[in-house]
Amino acid sequence: MTKLVLYLLPLIISCNAIHPGPVVRATKGEVWPKPQVEEKTEQYYTVRPHGFNFKGPTNIGCPNLLNDAFTRYWTIIATASSLERRGRLHEVGRKPKTKFWKADSNYLGDLTNLHVQLDDCASEYVLPAFGDNENYTLSVTSEGASLTADTIWGVLRGLETFSQLIYLEQDTLIINATNVNDYPRFSHRGLLLDTSRHFIPIYIILQTLDAMSYNKFNVFHWHITDDHSFPYKSRTYPELSDEGAYHPVSKVYEQSDVSKVIEYARVRGIRVIPEFDTPGHTSSWGAAHPELLTTCYTNDKPDGDLGPMDPTKNSTYDFLTKLFTEVVEVFPDSYFHIGGDEVDFTCWQHNPDIASFMKANNISTYEDLESYFIQHVVNLLDSLNSNYLVWEEVFVNGVTLPDSTLVHVWRDNGHETLNSVTKAGKYGIFSSCWYLDHVSSGGDWEKFYECEALDFPGTEEQKKLVLGGEACMWSEAVNEYNVMPRVWPRASAVAEKLWSAGNVNDTQAAKGRLEEHTCRMNNRGIAAQPPNGPGVCL
Amino acid sequence: MTKLVLYLLPLIISCNAIHPGPVVRATKGEVWPKPQVEEKTEQYYTVRPHGFNFKGPTNIGCPNLLNDAFTRYWTIIATASSLERRGRLHEVGRKPKTKFWKADSNYLGDLTNLHVQLDDCASEYVLPAFGDNENYTLSVTSEGASLTADTIWGVLRGLETFSQLIYLEQDTLIINATNVNDYPRFSHRGLLLDTSRHFIPIYIILQTLDAMSYNKFNVFHWHITDDHSFPYKSRTYPELSDEGAYHPVSKVYEQSDVSKVIEYARVRGIRVIPEFDTPGHTSSWGAAHPELLTTCYTNDKPDGDLGPMDPTKNSTYDFLTKLFTEVVEVFPDSYFHIGGDEVDFTCWQHNPDIASFMKANNISTYEDLESYFIQHVVNLLDSLNSNYLVWEEVFVNGVTLPDSTLVHVWRDNGHETLNSVTKAGKYGIFSSCWYLDHVSSGGDWEKFYECEALDFPGTEEQKKLVLGGEACMWSEAVNEYNVMPRVWPRASAVAEKLWSAGNVNDTQAAKGRLEEHTCRMNNRGIAAQPPNGPGVCL
Repeated sequence: MTKLVLYLLPLIISCNAIHPGPVVRATKGEVWPKPQVEEKTEQYYTVRPHGFNFKGPTNIGCPNLLNDAFTRYWTIIATASSLERRGRLHEVGRKPKTKFWKADSNYLGDLTNLHVQLDDCASEYVLPAFGDNENYTLSVTSEGASLTADTIWGVLRGLETFSQLIYLEQDTLIINATNVNDYPRFSHRGLLLDTSRHFIPIYIILQTLDAMSYNKFNVFHWHITDDHSFPYKSRTYPELSDEGAYHPVSKVYEQSDVSKVIEYARVRGIRVIPEFDTPGHTSSWGAAHPELLTTCYTNDKPDGDLGPMDPTKNSTYDFLTKLFTEVVEVFPDSYFHIGGDEVDFTCWQHNPDIASFMKANNISTYEDLESYFIQHVVNLLDSLNSNYLVWEEVFVNGVTLPDSTLVHVWRDNGHETLNSVTKAGKYGIFSSCWYLDHVSSGGDWEKFYECEALDFPGTEEQKKLVLGGEACMWSEAVNEYNVMPRVWPRASAVAEKLWSAGNVNDTQAAKGRLEEHTCRMNNRGIAAQPPNGPGVCL
Repeated sequence: MTKLVLYLLPLIISCNAIHPGPVVRATKGEVWPKPQVEEKTEQYYTVRPHGFNFKGPTNIGCPNLLNDAFTRYWTIIATASSLERRGRLHEVGRKPKTKFWKADSNYLGDLTNLHVQLDDCASEYVLPAFGDNENYTLSVTSEGASLTADTIWGVLRGLETFSQLIYLEQDTLIINATNVNDYPRFSHRGLLLDTSRHFIPIYIILQTLDAMSYNKFNVFHWHITDDHSFPYKSRTYPELSDEGAYHPVSKVYEQSDVSKVIEYARVRGIRVIPEFDTPGHTSSWGAAHPELLTTCYTNDKPDGDLGPMDPTKNSTYDFLTKLFTEVVEVFPDSYFHIGGDEVDFTCWQHNPDIASFMKANNISTYEDLESYFIQHVVNLLDSLNSNYLVWEEVFVNGVTLPDSTLVHVWRDNGHETLNSVTKAGKYGIFSSCWYLDHVSSGGDWEKFYECEALDFPGTEEQKKLVLGGEACMWSEAVNEYNVMPRVWPRASAVAEKLWSAGNVNDTQAAKGRLEEHTCRMNNRGIAAQPPNGPGVCL
């Protein structure tokens, strides 16, 4: 009585019977997201963690980053064979068959090293940045295994791939002889997390960054404030979170928390882009600073409510200058997401001061008034030498934007908008069909997988201006208890759309790999939900 | 850019502005599910856990059950005031105002006791059973607090209510003077959990039982086996799980696990009804015992597949007799769910032995063949002195059922079916619109709340035959990581439909109470998801 005919359909087509066991069999040692070029052979090594080491260059600029990654991936590989997880099979009839590897002509012996070749890091402290080279080549042959990349970021991606090529066969870790030549399709591969509508504790953000690295995401878009709460504890204006957070002590991100997130992300090759959305989505700012927001009127009298930021006051811009000067200092990435979406004009429409201001300044529409505001913010960011992303409304409303601006397309007609954005020579970031808060029954990842960012009728030149996309986890309906399984493995579908070649688009073919990848995430401590119906992770 | 206009709608109607803070304010000290009669006054006590005790009768039959409950609820009350959770408010501006309780004319002082009055339990070991009296009265007046019930089960329900009446005001626990006279609308209030499609570890089942007790559910319907795996480790046929579980050691329920679940449920007043679904949904049985299942044919030859149980062989019934004799012994509840749903006839249709058997026995339809099978199972259960539930198909197909049978209605036209079932004088259990695996965006509980079991055009006599319902958590798309937030608080909506009066049906009015109840569950360690959009639990 489960009504989920969906899951049974492929089986019903192929035969009358439902077979015991998982509906979709997990692949073994397949990589997610799928590498651009991968050639695998029948030959294989065994990997015995305690006899295995990473060997890397010693005289390069970023030894810590490299050594940390080696430790991380050694631990991942070592725990992939956990017997605890699979239980004591010898106690029951279903014993594993012991394979006599040595008698097998495909057996290449124990793999003892992965040689990592990296010419240099720029310096001791390197920060992932927009447009980084993430290419790598990985080669596991009868001669041994080596990983080569131009940058530390390429090395990190390659180590992830290497760890995923290793799989458990009976009770032994195996890696097939494989050649991988890999690079991302898009350079901006993001996950947005909204920490305002529900507060998401730091430990969940760190788990999210772990999972992002397992999926080769490279941008954590931290939608840190919104109408409902202001959890960022500012050094300049601590009262913003003292008054505007859901709780001034237990539901805030201290400066030390923010540093921890940035560093945890950095060593995994993930940029952290903060978003302080204005002029709408700012109600929580008004808890401490009501003067920043527009006074709303009903029947020509203030009605006690506050609307979007007040674009007519210089004091608003002075405040933002001080706050954003801090934010640009705290968040080292050269990009800042300044929001600019969904401004409700009702409050502006009834405020007499707004009316006088518009008249005095020859501003005839509220879209133009919004543009007037955003233009100030844009100029402010320019003066702070920061680049920025904006939500699509900013572009649509005609704000003058420098060419470096990334226009973040999110509304339903996203492909059309991407066409306009790129026709105007602007860069586009795509999210329209990757809203993780849109949920349906089942594993619910196919709809994300079947959406292609470049599916609009522009020129090749236009399409080059689409730099990537983001899966968006708005937090109306997620808290710390369900956010991880809500995001994973559904965001993994987006990760593959953003990393892998455009022709990797066969949902049916992806199922077995995503089944394996989900179990891999579970085994690494990520609370991912099942992607494909009945199944098990061992 | 969140597109979830849904949440903002009530606010947009009332004003232009979005206010900071939660969208739905949690109530304080409101009970879920809502009691039948509840009168609350402005007068109140403070409750200081270390100065508070339960006082109960000492010379009754079930002292352990009572004392365990006292310990459990004392701990719940004591941890409800955890300062850790709310942080050190004195460190920031937003200090709690200290209230001078003593100067308040409504203040009744510290509540030091709840006097529990219970005449007797039947014996030392009491088991919750079908039709138990769960009524209780709870009275908190200026004279003190007392709880009276006819049975230990009524006491348990009353203790739950008492614990929910206590709420945190500033940093003090408060209970208002309140009179509650309460009893359930339906006697069978169940939650089905499918542990076959994904294995659900015991620790999650125990958490589920905790949460069930917080929602006054009284039946744990354990859908323990299905096509995909057979995790029940039988004493009689251990090979069923050795071969048919997802893993013979790590993904099985040992006899000791089952006992633990039954005992944990018992002390919380929850019955455990096992379901061993036959003759369909049995593929996993075939891993060890293929002879139980029908051999499928293609082009007049066995095609290697197996179908539903083979109803033509006496050996099938002999096997079930031995297994069910064990099951009835292991699970002490007097009811057994024997399944009987969704039998796919394709395999039967092509098997020549089935055809001969049907001819020889004058069985002309596959529905009749299914009935032939079920009649055997029904007779078997009768001989074991067990009562049973069956899925609706068994009734629809015309199997002869004793009047004690509960017909479990699950298909989309459930109200129509309930009408037929009760018209035929049979008892009905309703689940049609309470399938928790049907998910939508948002908090996603309203649809369950807005479904009324008795909404069919039968007589009053017919409606009395509807004994309750069950929320069903089929596990195609849930594993141990997402099952708790998938079930809670969505199943709480069903809990209120089953316990509270029929006129408690105002979704809008329920929102604030469910917000509080969800936070209460979170604070008690239940990983419930947010019900109502942006919010916080402190």
